[in-house]
Amino acid sequence: MGIPDEQIHPVATGRAAETAAQHQSPQDLTFWSGWFCPFNQQVWIALEEKGIPYQYKEVNPYKKEKHFLELNPKGLVPTVEHKGKALYESLVLCEFLEEAYQSYKPSLLPADPYERARVRIWIDHTSKNILPAWQRLLVAQDKDKEDAARRELYEGQKKLAEQVKGPYFLGEEFSLVDVANAPWAPREYILVEHRGYNPEGAGAKWKAYTERLSERDSVIKTTSDPDKLQVIYDRYLRDEAQSEAAKAIRAGRPMP
Amino acid sequence: MGIPDEQIHPVATGRAAETAAQHQSPQDLTFWSGWFCPFNQQVWIALEEKGIPYQYKEVNPYKKEKHFLELNPKGLVPTVEHKGKALYESLVLCEFLEEAYQSYKPSLLPADPYERARVRIWIDHTSKNILPAWQRLLVAQDKDKEDAARRELYEGQKKLAEQVKGPYFLGEEFSLVDVANAPWAPREYILVEHRGYNPEGAGAKWKAYTERLSERDSVIKTTSDPDKLQVIYDRYLRDEAQSEAAKAIRAGRPMP
Repeated sequence: MGIPDEQIHPVATGRAAETAAQHQSPQDLTFWSGWFCPFNQQVWIALEEKGIPYQYKEVNPYKKEKHFLELNPKGLVPTVEHKGKALYESLVLCEFLEEAYQSYKPSLLPADPYERARVRIWIDHTSKNILPAWQRLLVAQDKDKEDAARRELYEGQKKLAEQVKGPYFLGEEFSLVDVANAPWAPREYILVEHRGYNPEGAGAKWKAYTERLSERDSVIKTTSDPDKLQVIYDRYLRDEAQSEAAKAIRAGRPMP
Repeated sequence: MGIPDEQIHPVATGRAAETAAQHQSPQDLTFWSGWFCPFNQQVWIALEEKGIPYQYKEVNPYKKEKHFLELNPKGLVPTVEHKGKALYESLVLCEFLEEAYQSYKPSLLPADPYERARVRIWIDHTSKNILPAWQRLLVAQDKDKEDAARRELYEGQKKLAEQVKGPYFLGEEFSLVDVANAPWAPREYILVEHRGYNPEGAGAKWKAYTERLSERDSVIKTTSDPDKLQVIYDRYLRDEAQSEAAKAIRAGRPMP
């Protein structure tokens, strides 16, 4: 059974803890967050990028509060409570923030319908090809699976990198493609140290892109201390994690 | 190896052929379509619902034309060519049609940001839970897998049905949740005849919902003859299909 997930560090640390501390007063929007979850961080980055007023509430997903479960019966973070109504699914939440806070700039989606669709195509590529390969590489327990996952990850990252204008996907403008990929930039060291991953394996363009993402202010401000992240990932590296994402990958299913 | 997929019937038949014939003149939007593909039909339904002018071009995805592959290197249908530029991914295309043709009514997304996010959450549920279970049930080759897939399909459908106001997801208004689910309504007979599926297994609400979808004019007008669909599905029922969706499900991966 391994170490039970209940033992994970309960709150954000480092720069993420400072950011959480600055967002404790009640607002129209409550961000029900799990500091360790990269999908959660996508939403956090979008909130910070747009400067939306929000209250940060940490959820331990393995010890879920009653009010939280009433809001989101799926019990997953991130959940956004907006004027008393709950929404979930990280990328749906990012689009919601764009639409509910249209006057908050920058916009994370371009104005032109064709360009908006291109952004959504590459978010879809990220969700379907890059992130599942990342997760498979993380939990791979034998060399064949590890090699296959690493190859697939490089391939997915390379395809996206070919579309990156630089420094970000659309050029100078930070968009939801960048939001979708950014949380994995400060986690890359896990794969480098434990899974023979080399950012240059996906080409120089990918390496430059992921460096820009990891240096982005909104990413730094929402990332906890590496030693606390390491504790979380130790369980994934042994394929012992019990999160919904971990169980889905083990069963060969889409991540929830 | 089974029957090669190149042998599939090359063009739409029945009501779908009539609709295709009515859309042969050049327009700003070319719909590169595969008549047999339910993801393709999602886009076709959206085009018909909104009354957008389009030119229908049938693609045999196993004999891809050079111009089509230049437009969409992934080589998948549906592809939309809009003023010479190509877009793909069926649900991205549906959102694109909404945004690029805002003056065309009805709108398939509600105006309120919270309601739009709810629609996207249940589209996401459809894509991640209902449709992969449908596909797994279709290709199941032994009783255990068949029973498991049927159970998961009922569960996913029941969860969505609980949210359906009736007759459609949002009530009288037809939305992208309905578009996302509709193509599987006229295909349900395949599971009924071959996989012990019973629409009432997902509850009376689901049964009523899927009946309303199959009676919708835009769905009828974009559905080919059942005997031609049957030929396609015979290969899936023997798990011999070579489409990208079939290969993905076989490998336990998200559908492309």
